[in-house]
Amino acid sequence: MSQRKPIRTDIAWSTPSTITVKGFDLCKDVLGTLSLGDMAFLELTDRLPTTRESVVFNAIAVTLVEHGLTPSAIATRMTYTGAPEAMQAAVAAGLCGLGSVFVGSMETAARMLQEALPDPAKKADLGELARGIVEHFHARKQAVPGIGHPLHKPEDPRAPRLFQIAAENGFDGPYIKLMRQVAKEAQSVYGKPLPINATGAIAAIASELMLPWRIVRGIGVMARAIGLVGHVLEEMRAPMAREIKARAEEEATAHLRKV
Amino acid sequence: MSQRKPIRTDIAWSTPSTITVKGFDLCKDVLGTLSLGDMAFLELTDRLPTTRESVVFNAIAVTLVEHGLTPSAIATRMTYTGAPEAMQAAVAAGLCGLGSVFVGSMETAARMLQEALPDPAKKADLGELARGIVEHFHARKQAVPGIGHPLHKPEDPRAPRLFQIAAENGFDGPYIKLMRQVAKEAQSVYGKPLPINATGAIAAIASELMLPWRIVRGIGVMARAIGLVGHVLEEMRAPMAREIKARAEEEATAHLRKV
Amino acid sequence: MSQRKPIRTDIAWSTPSTITVKGFDLCKDVLGTLSLGDMAFLELTDRLPTTRESVVFNAIAVTLVEHGLTPSAIATRMTYTGAPEAMQAAVAAGLCGLGSVFVGSMETAARMLQEALPDPAKKADLGELARGIVEHFHARKQAVPGIGHPLHKPEDPRAPRLFQIAAENGFDGPYIKLMRQVAKEAQSVYGKPLPINATGAIAAIASELMLPWRIVRGIGVMARAIGLVGHVLEEMRAPMAREIKARAEEEATAHLRKV
Amino acid sequence: MSQRKPIRTDIAWSTPSTITVKGFDLCKDVLGTLSLGDMAFLELTDRLPTTRESVVFNAIAVTLVEHGLTPSAIATRMTYTGAPEAMQAAVAAGLCGLGSVFVGSMETAARMLQEALPDPAKKADLGELARGIVEHFHARKQAVPGIGHPLHKPEDPRAPRLFQIAAENGFDGPYIKLMRQVAKEAQSVYGKPLPINATGAIAAIASELMLPWRIVRGIGVMARAIGLVGHVLEEMRAPMAREIKARAEEEATAHLRKV
Repeated sequence: MSQRKPIRTDIAWSTPSTITVKGFDLCKDVLGTLSLGDMAFLELTDRLPTTRESVVFNAIAVTLVEHGLTPSAIATRMTYTGAPEAMQAAVAAGLCGLGSVFVGSMETAARMLQEALPDPAKKADLGELARGIVEHFHARKQAVPGIGHPLHKPEDPRAPRLFQIAAENGFDGPYIKLMRQVAKEAQSVYGKPLPINATGAIAAIASELMLPWRIVRGIGVMARAIGLVGHVLEEMRAPMAREIKARAEEEATAHLRKV
Repeated sequence: MSQRKPIRTDIAWSTPSTITVKGFDLCKDVLGTLSLGDMAFLELTDRLPTTRESVVFNAIAVTLVEHGLTPSAIATRMTYTGAPEAMQAAVAAGLCGLGSVFVGSMETAARMLQEALPDPAKKADLGELARGIVEHFHARKQAVPGIGHPLHKPEDPRAPRLFQIAAENGFDGPYIKLMRQVAKEAQSVYGKPLPINATGAIAAIASELMLPWRIVRGIGVMARAIGLVGHVLEEMRAPMAREIKARAEEEATAHLRKV
Repeated sequence: MSQRKPIRTDIAWSTPSTITVKGFDLCKDVLGTLSLGDMAFLELTDRLPTTRESVVFNAIAVTLVEHGLTPSAIATRMTYTGAPEAMQAAVAAGLCGLGSVFVGSMETAARMLQEALPDPAKKADLGELARGIVEHFHARKQAVPGIGHPLHKPEDPRAPRLFQIAAENGFDGPYIKLMRQVAKEAQSVYGKPLPINATGAIAAIASELMLPWRIVRGIGVMARAIGLVGHVLEEMRAPMAREIKARAEEEATAHLRKV
Repeated sequence: MSQRKPIRTDIAWSTPSTITVKGFDLCKDVLGTLSLGDMAFLELTDRLPTTRESVVFNAIAVTLVEHGLTPSAIATRMTYTGAPEAMQAAVAAGLCGLGSVFVGSMETAARMLQEALPDPAKKADLGELARGIVEHFHARKQAVPGIGHPLHKPEDPRAPRLFQIAAENGFDGPYIKLMRQVAKEAQSVYGKPLPINATGAIAAIASELMLPWRIVRGIGVMARAIGLVGHVLEEMRAPMAREIKARAEEEATAHLRKV
């Protein structure tokens, strides 16, 4: 028999009369007290948020719930059309697309900030760090994560609002400052306005909240699952998936069909 | 060309300078004001919750976030092991199992209550409705949804706590009463204690909140996505998937291998 | 500690120098000998197909590979757009929609046939069975599975071709006869032509191959995974997902946006 | 209105009386003639395989169908337990884990070979290319893709068998030679036996078949979907998911529970 390694979780356990989650008694300490957003914070940090952390964390999570008729929402609706008895699989299908292109970009931006500034308590020349970051991406002909937006011009209105909420709650530290420096530096190197987008603001604020970059995408996954349930509900009541499919199929095969 | 039907969503839309979700200006009205749980309520009902509705809805959602090392959590961890670059797909894999057996049972219970009592404002003989429900399932040799629990005996501690929170916030209406009658009636027909479980309590409270049964499973899907991100995070830090797999494989193929 | 039940698989196992699948030595007996379709037959039946079974099984599986720009294919393409680094999740998203409405209908049809005729070796009055089946669905105002098609009129060309292949290979038994009787009976009850569709033909032939109805949907899942990889490849080379999304979003929110 | 781009597919289309796939009439040219593996080849290459290509392609696809109780198979079984009515979602959950760690490694190996040798018809110094490749990975302290195996020692029996099948069918070209050189070179640099594994053999043979590296992972996705349906079937008949879960949960929370 091969050597066994221990299996251990510290997330949750139950006895016949109690349920414990992250050390809290679900019925006594959590239900009726903790909101869904604070429960999400607990899952990510193993502790309850302060009131100010709660406001800030809920704001970034809420930002990510709903982006309208995204590719993910369409994938969810297409799946629901074929398997209405398995709504959970429709939401799952939508989540599968939260990869490098959309929600995953938050992870890239958070990684950029946290790798440049591993210890936020340590004094650092943010301007120099920002120059290094922008040079790095510019040399590779890659877009700098967290800045610029195809629709929201000249600025993404979510970024200043999120930074305002963060500042009002005492979060205006080095990661937010570094993100601002990166945008400023990028604008000078690329010669065009590249303001911080929602992704960049969330990455910076999540870093201020000490969330490791590897889990930052998870905030988007949690939040978007909520929004995708909303799309399932609308698809139940006012379906569009079959019509989108019918039109796409008709046009896409028009050069081939001779009825 | 075939007849086109209109495609229409009322969930969210954007202009270069604004984002609107369910009629609310995201930056002005939502961020910094609405919590993640209230945003979920907005997705499900197209309106903001009252303070009391917020407490009750957040309580049922929070109940569903984390059930420890469930089959879903293991599916998420197994998937993360093979595709750590696609955390969203790991959460999606876990959600795929929220079907008829576990989270879907809330839907069955909510359907049972709402079909028995389509108009909660209308006077009804709840005892008679409960008798009809229990007879229906008993005759088909099916379990009555929302009652009994394999571990939580003699009662599921979440049910009384959730009902208490609901009552304190003004929700103690006919669906909760009907659920209680069903449990009482079932106990007499099946001849053993069958107290309301978390599923039954949530189904009844969701019905009081006027959530249609077809979307009740969605509360579980939203909530569990949050919990599954927590399992991804723990799997990153203290992995167990490979060990679970190694042991299962070793035992399951022991009768076949002769090394 | 709770009572342990054994964990056991008979599918596959390995030693340092051998890999065994369903009792066959992969390197010696399978590779270079077995085709992918025959391997699928082995997975479903625990034995190799005869030459005639192979032709028939491959024909029904091949029928299910590609149905063009289906909702599933669109879900796959939408997912690939967001997560091009996780092609497997794009195929998974497409598979999630193979539920009751599309591919799952094969399962319903196979169940209908196998429950009516549990033992195909036993003499039965197929006309009477067919009358019972059609009455059952007609009384419930449900469509009879396996007959009629929205596009393929007056007949679905796949059905006669599949039955021809089956007959040429010795498969023209009671399930195929019963399916034909069901179509004939339905036509008389519903008063319109309702020829057997691909789904009905596949369900009948799968039943002739002794595949239990509970796994019949699996043939569609296997086959469509192949087709969805083809859609990923085309989406890489000639993308359409973003354009479909842009158009749908533009129309669907036109009543809301005032730029 | 924004500028519209055309939407176009060349995969499949239908008229009331015909179904066309990749230019072939499904009923006349494909059914009864093409096997499932050859259909997969058609999806990947837009043409039918020669007899020899068919043997070789089917061999590599068959190799990937079944690897026993993998993390993917466990994810599929866990999902089936919770949602037995949605078998397609169980297979989807299993596919989600075919990422960078397991099946995705074929993609990495194929990319390595194809980027080193973009034009296989052009004369190249394979020894030099191999040295460059091994140096590249060695300098980054990364494993060289396609060589070494934790269980199959001293060699992975699938690799020589697949190369034998390829050679017997006329495929013994520069990609296979380069893969061999890479293994030889790695052995000398790392100072230990690092024979070609199944992944490396498949990557080399897929490259000989002119399949672009970006789609090579797709062969694994297609094939494993077949195997995962086999695991669903076994889980139906001889379930193990709940027992695996019960044991894992018991051990993993033992340090927390005091019943």
